[in-house]
Amino acid sequence: MPAALIQHPFMSQSALAECNAEAMVQAMLAFELALAEAQEARGAVPEQMSAQMRHLLEGHRFDIDAIAAGIASGGNAAIPFVKQARAALPAELKRYFHQGATSQDVVDSALMLLLKPRLAALDALLRRCRAAAMALMEAHDETVMVGRTLMQQALPITFGVKVAHWAIGLEQARRRLAGVELPVQFGGAVGVHSGLEEPGRDDRGLDYMDALAERLGLSAPVLPWHTDRQPVHALGTALDAVAGAAEKLALDVALLTQTEVGEVAEPSAPGMGESSSMPHKRNPVRCALIRGAARQVHGHATVLLNAAAQPLERGLGEWHAEWAPLVDSALLLEGALEQAAVLLEGLEVHPEAMQRNLAATGGGIMAEPVAKLLAPTLGPDAAKRISAEAAETARLQGVAYAAALNVHPEVQGRLDPEEVARVTDPSLYLGSSRVQVARAAEWLMTS
Amino acid sequence: MPAALIQHPFMSQSALAECNAEAMVQAMLAFELALAEAQEARGAVPEQMSAQMRHLLEGHRFDIDAIAAGIASGGNAAIPFVKQARAALPAELKRYFHQGATSQDVVDSALMLLLKPRLAALDALLRRCRAAAMALMEAHDETVMVGRTLMQQALPITFGVKVAHWAIGLEQARRRLAGVELPVQFGGAVGVHSGLEEPGRDDRGLDYMDALAERLGLSAPVLPWHTDRQPVHALGTALDAVAGAAEKLALDVALLTQTEVGEVAEPSAPGMGESSSMPHKRNPVRCALIRGAARQVHGHATVLLNAAAQPLERGLGEWHAEWAPLVDSALLLEGALEQAAVLLEGLEVHPEAMQRNLAATGGGIMAEPVAKLLAPTLGPDAAKRISAEAAETARLQGVAYAAALNVHPEVQGRLDPEEVARVTDPSLYLGSSRVQVARAAEWLMTS
Amino acid sequence: MPAALIQHPFMSQSALAECNAEAMVQAMLAFELALAEAQEARGAVPEQMSAQMRHLLEGHRFDIDAIAAGIASGGNAAIPFVKQARAALPAELKRYFHQGATSQDVVDSALMLLLKPRLAALDALLRRCRAAAMALMEAHDETVMVGRTLMQQALPITFGVKVAHWAIGLEQARRRLAGVELPVQFGGAVGVHSGLEEPGRDDRGLDYMDALAERLGLSAPVLPWHTDRQPVHALGTALDAVAGAAEKLALDVALLTQTEVGEVAEPSAPGMGESSSMPHKRNPVRCALIRGAARQVHGHATVLLNAAAQPLERGLGEWHAEWAPLVDSALLLEGALEQAAVLLEGLEVHPEAMQRNLAATGGGIMAEPVAKLLAPTLGPDAAKRISAEAAETARLQGVAYAAALNVHPEVQGRLDPEEVARVTDPSLYLGSSRVQVARAAEWLMTS
Amino acid sequence: MPAALIQHPFMSQSALAECNAEAMVQAMLAFELALAEAQEARGAVPEQMSAQMRHLLEGHRFDIDAIAAGIASGGNAAIPFVKQARAALPAELKRYFHQGATSQDVVDSALMLLLKPRLAALDALLRRCRAAAMALMEAHDETVMVGRTLMQQALPITFGVKVAHWAIGLEQARRRLAGVELPVQFGGAVGVHSGLEEPGRDDRGLDYMDALAERLGLSAPVLPWHTDRQPVHALGTALDAVAGAAEKLALDVALLTQTEVGEVAEPSAPGMGESSSMPHKRNPVRCALIRGAARQVHGHATVLLNAAAQPLERGLGEWHAEWAPLVDSALLLEGALEQAAVLLEGLEVHPEAMQRNLAATGGGIMAEPVAKLLAPTLGPDAAKRISAEAAETARLQGVAYAAALNVHPEVQGRLDPEEVARVTDPSLYLGSSRVQVARAAEWLMTS
Repeated sequence: MPAALIQHPFMSQSALAECNAEAMVQAMLAFELALAEAQEARGAVPEQMSAQMRHLLEGHRFDIDAIAAGIASGGNAAIPFVKQARAALPAELKRYFHQGATSQDVVDSALMLLLKPRLAALDALLRRCRAAAMALMEAHDETVMVGRTLMQQALPITFGVKVAHWAIGLEQARRRLAGVELPVQFGGAVGVHSGLEEPGRDDRGLDYMDALAERLGLSAPVLPWHTDRQPVHALGTALDAVAGAAEKLALDVALLTQTEVGEVAEPSAPGMGESSSMPHKRNPVRCALIRGAARQVHGHATVLLNAAAQPLERGLGEWHAEWAPLVDSALLLEGALEQAAVLLEGLEVHPEAMQRNLAATGGGIMAEPVAKLLAPTLGPDAAKRISAEAAETARLQGVAYAAALNVHPEVQGRLDPEEVARVTDPSLYLGSSRVQVARAAEWLMTS
Repeated sequence: MPAALIQHPFMSQSALAECNAEAMVQAMLAFELALAEAQEARGAVPEQMSAQMRHLLEGHRFDIDAIAAGIASGGNAAIPFVKQARAALPAELKRYFHQGATSQDVVDSALMLLLKPRLAALDALLRRCRAAAMALMEAHDETVMVGRTLMQQALPITFGVKVAHWAIGLEQARRRLAGVELPVQFGGAVGVHSGLEEPGRDDRGLDYMDALAERLGLSAPVLPWHTDRQPVHALGTALDAVAGAAEKLALDVALLTQTEVGEVAEPSAPGMGESSSMPHKRNPVRCALIRGAARQVHGHATVLLNAAAQPLERGLGEWHAEWAPLVDSALLLEGALEQAAVLLEGLEVHPEAMQRNLAATGGGIMAEPVAKLLAPTLGPDAAKRISAEAAETARLQGVAYAAALNVHPEVQGRLDPEEVARVTDPSLYLGSSRVQVARAAEWLMTS
Repeated sequence: MPAALIQHPFMSQSALAECNAEAMVQAMLAFELALAEAQEARGAVPEQMSAQMRHLLEGHRFDIDAIAAGIASGGNAAIPFVKQARAALPAELKRYFHQGATSQDVVDSALMLLLKPRLAALDALLRRCRAAAMALMEAHDETVMVGRTLMQQALPITFGVKVAHWAIGLEQARRRLAGVELPVQFGGAVGVHSGLEEPGRDDRGLDYMDALAERLGLSAPVLPWHTDRQPVHALGTALDAVAGAAEKLALDVALLTQTEVGEVAEPSAPGMGESSSMPHKRNPVRCALIRGAARQVHGHATVLLNAAAQPLERGLGEWHAEWAPLVDSALLLEGALEQAAVLLEGLEVHPEAMQRNLAATGGGIMAEPVAKLLAPTLGPDAAKRISAEAAETARLQGVAYAAALNVHPEVQGRLDPEEVARVTDPSLYLGSSRVQVARAAEWLMTS
Repeated sequence: MPAALIQHPFMSQSALAECNAEAMVQAMLAFELALAEAQEARGAVPEQMSAQMRHLLEGHRFDIDAIAAGIASGGNAAIPFVKQARAALPAELKRYFHQGATSQDVVDSALMLLLKPRLAALDALLRRCRAAAMALMEAHDETVMVGRTLMQQALPITFGVKVAHWAIGLEQARRRLAGVELPVQFGGAVGVHSGLEEPGRDDRGLDYMDALAERLGLSAPVLPWHTDRQPVHALGTALDAVAGAAEKLALDVALLTQTEVGEVAEPSAPGMGESSSMPHKRNPVRCALIRGAARQVHGHATVLLNAAAQPLERGLGEWHAEWAPLVDSALLLEGALEQAAVLLEGLEVHPEAMQRNLAATGGGIMAEPVAKLLAPTLGPDAAKRISAEAAETARLQGVAYAAALNVHPEVQGRLDPEEVARVTDPSLYLGSSRVQVARAAEWLMTS
């Protein structure tokens, strides 16, 4: 696959380096060794044998190509992996390897182990985003800009409060992801630990499951979840939620970066965003990469939504369909958040462009407060009409809205110019912008 | 739309009756009245005026067709609704209606109000499912059946533990949904409560937002969430998770209901599941309806995933695209859970068919424990071969696996028949089935 | 359902009026009557009986609520419909009604009949769009504007060529949709026309199928397609392709309508696009409705993609899940195209804003051709640098790019001012814009 | 990425080997060289220069890691590729390389070039499937089995006609895919061939575009399609249609392979389908792999549906999001079809199991024709009741349906036993099964 040129660019390069086929093999091995140890601790494996296994296998060079090739006949990586591992063990150890486990136990648990550091990395990146956003919120608590609805100029806000909304979205998604559990999987052939029971002790399997969770740093599920895929659904949709929050940031930055808007720019970096044919351009490449990644995450999540119901005691393709979407989602998202963190940490903010754009309608955006001011004197209908007429005059003649109002024939002399100046000043019409920033900051710091 | 014939059958009929256009109008009205009351409580509306509004509007017959027709020009239901409501008020009240609010505040909050009783109904249905599942788990804690992986017979389990796995999936999804918040929306034109600030008091907007939440029984968000759609994403995906859990139940029941399997049957009801051309058939119609609903929910969730990123201070289609998928998801899911509850409460279980199917392979499913028994005496390879040969003999000659084993030339006399009887008995090879049921029951009862 | 307020606004109102539950019943009836007629024509129904049926049933008032209520027990509308119809027939006719048919035959065929006029309406709307686009292409063949990549200003194009690209997309989608077949469904209980064969004549079923296709104006499939859902996949994805083409138009118009860009505006209409709180705004409501509809169509298409594989001889939920997404897609799309047609027919184009935006970078967008002009004299590196420096000077000092170039210290006197004027003139750097319009027009007219 | 262990197993290994990063680089190079040749042919590149380029670059070892690393700053592979290629050329050739092209031209065209052999391979596999299906259809034209609706036994069909339905689905999808065009992309920076026009010749760009199509064996689009993504939508959904048809086959085979059904089995192969813990099992691994692949294709298609609308003259993430889903879809599908071809070519069919299952209901599946036989004599209601009672007797007592009918107290002596034998014989109630096979075969052979 030409993944290096069409998929990996959206991913975290460090994550790609860590989260590879070798890591998957090591994760499968970690599961098996922990299982042998847990069984040894309860007397189901002779003493010292798990240590011998660990000794023999931790340094073993698994033949990844052979494992990959072996997947075709069994349908998953655990079968050829177990064969290779057993082949590397002396006869007396073979039977204690993978004892009571099934392929799905190995693969599901290994995927959780692979994803654990990814979730940690995602959390760290989201905290970086949060810190950067809080710095921007503080720095731009007084930076006035126009708010836009349906992409039309509406009424003033601050840039700080806009950042606060981004930050809240990202942090909600972070907390949701942080609350997702990565459970160990251990159920044996049909999910009931067949053959592990001993006379009077049918809890052995659950006992091993709990011990595995503890040894591997995963959570202990209530029961094996071989065809109860709620954990995968929760994880996949939580990843998607983060993708959505990052995509919102990228969409806004891309819109604000438009040549005609120019209110922010992606942090400049050598060669970043250059065009192959147009020397003057600086493209919002980070935004494009984030949006490109997020959309792929949505597609992967769709696979998981449609694979939640798996037949009887093992999926027949539904389970298999989860693997790549789950891992790809995490890697794409990590790539997107690396970009998002850089964006937030280095975003170029142009308050003067915000001022210029605030004036673009000649004051039209302040027509609402002006109409309110005029209404008691002139009646609501005339007030609306006059406030709009003056805005049009201002826009066409390039004069200030206040000036246009003061000279409007129906207004002249009937209003206090100071009052007019006040009511046409966007920086005095910011609603709860600042208090929202404060409230957001407080909430962001609570965990 | 022919919805009554192609979409409503999947939905809860009682929910459909409650959750209609009139209810949406009443929800919008509830928002506006609560806003006026909150503002009156803080002196922003003259005393008694909110009570007058309530008096005039609660009995008012809104013209729903006119509201629907008015949506075309403004793009949402709030605009024509507000016009109608204002038209029904005397001049002195008009300006205090919808004060400081924007359309999105009204529509988002109204949708949350519409969904609130739906979430309560879903929770109640899931509790009904849980109770029914627990009864089944208890009743069938000793009912042996075969577990199936990739739809092939594998090893024995109990029907009780299968139900426990369904119950865990449903309950995980229930708890996830129960944890989802339905926040009020109130932010004004650009999300910062423009025009509501008073000298030295820019927290008025947030203050109203919190008061609205309390009055309406919704949760108070950190900030307005006009283009931070995390709450919608969390809700939509939580609904989808429940759909997935119900779909799993329906898939299993449908598979176990197959003519050749016959281990369970949908509860019979007059006329239920009849075929228009085949008098002998009883179709798993409830399963079909659940699966049909769940798949539509997945499609709706996909819309929400792809609409999470909305531009600047108001979606341009992304927001609009959320409405129907969100409400339809809830209604489809409620329909699916009504079916699921009936399924679980009245499921016909056929232990004799389970016994018959356990014997279908002539004992092949017990080959693993038999091989383990033989291995110490005959070596692992011969053990595997012989256990398989005897199963084949049993299947072809229609004799019991134990008998076939006892007369196998390499076994004859070398094994204790009692031991053979024990090890070929599926009911003695149930692993942790029973303890899993107990563990599940305990967890299910913890909330 | 509050569909009238949250879903119908995206749909065609005339289509909604035509395509309702009554129409579905009439479509089911049309299928049954055509079947009886086809059977009568081959002697399988006594003479005149189909005419009697038609006479009795065409005027019959079916009880739609009862049909809807009856769906719960059988899982589809055909079962209760057939019961009602039979009840309305005298005993001697009953057995000739629905003879050899199964529910799926009735429902699938009825859906195709319902969709047929919708596809015709979609085709007509797409032709309206095409005509309107061609008029715009011609009118704006010389209207220069800036092309934007990654939403950044890049190089000049014409508005005409932009419209041509919209038109090509819409027309490709139209032709794809026009090529989709709406096949009749007729296969009986298990898709092989059980019981319709006669001694030596096992082709009766296929014969009826073909006759039905002809009588109903549907296409004749190779075989019944009860669980070969390729026709549904082809139709659903073709509808989605049109949605994508309309969404592209809406996205571009929305971006060009932004306050700071202002190059086009949605056609004005009384009350259209007004804001509930901001009197000065005109929102691109049609774009929002188109985008809202298109996103819902994508969700519906996702359901169809995931339902293409249906088990054995009848879907178990997969089939049921297709109905609403298919019909909703058509109705949403028809609504979106009504908006698109109005948009294209009445779009306000502002060439002066396009001129203003072309100048916004001070000529930066012409830096590429300028650099090419300078390169032979000054070398490529200096050429790039100087072309950029002059653009920056022009932007900062508000002078023309040509003037800034002419006074650049390294250029002064070394270039022919006429050449400079030529090369900095966006209207002389339009590439193939005009010939593309001509090529597009020719292709658009070929069918 | 651990793709080798979790994603590649679903893909065609030979395709993976061919379609890699090196192939992508070579495809980009093929585009650039063809462009230089086309330009040389029209005098826009000095004579012989394109041959020199080809000579220098075809053997050049591109540094793929460096290209991959360079993507981060520009957002696509073309930018670093062009840099490397230019660096490998002498000064006099550099400016003629990538002349008039933009990154999207290179990447889109290269992807089409990469996909061209994949579509050919898919077509060949689908023809293999078709041939294998036709052989099965012929071999099993008389093999009677039970048809199943909602997974319940319904009425008899032949295995031949079931295969015919698979074959029709696959062939419809093949023809659809074969009709999809792979267009070259060439439009320059903003899609209008900026800078390529010459005095009086603004058709140069389109001329090159057409020449490129011819040289590269791609189709010539009407216009560049940089943000008209209909070609991608058509391709992606056509791939998905094939996936759906293969998934249908896999679903049916998996269901028929169930232990209790046993009517078919996947072709046996050494080690294929073995279980890591249960020696007796043979898992339908090919079906699982096909279904796993198909579900991932659906997810990828969802990305494409949601990326069809791209802003202005270049996608901002939407375009980027298409790359991996498009290529992955093709590779997953090729893997799935390799499995499907093997399945169809080597499917084990068990007519005796089909016979056994036909008898499982004691004749219940023949109750419909029996009721028809009885109706004239006993009236329709009694006929239905008696036909059902006899089936129940037959099932409970394990006797033949005919025998049970003949001894039914209300039937005794009133029916001709030969007639009863005939009407209870599934092999005489096959409807149009055989003629459907013939009709399908004819249609399958028409192209």
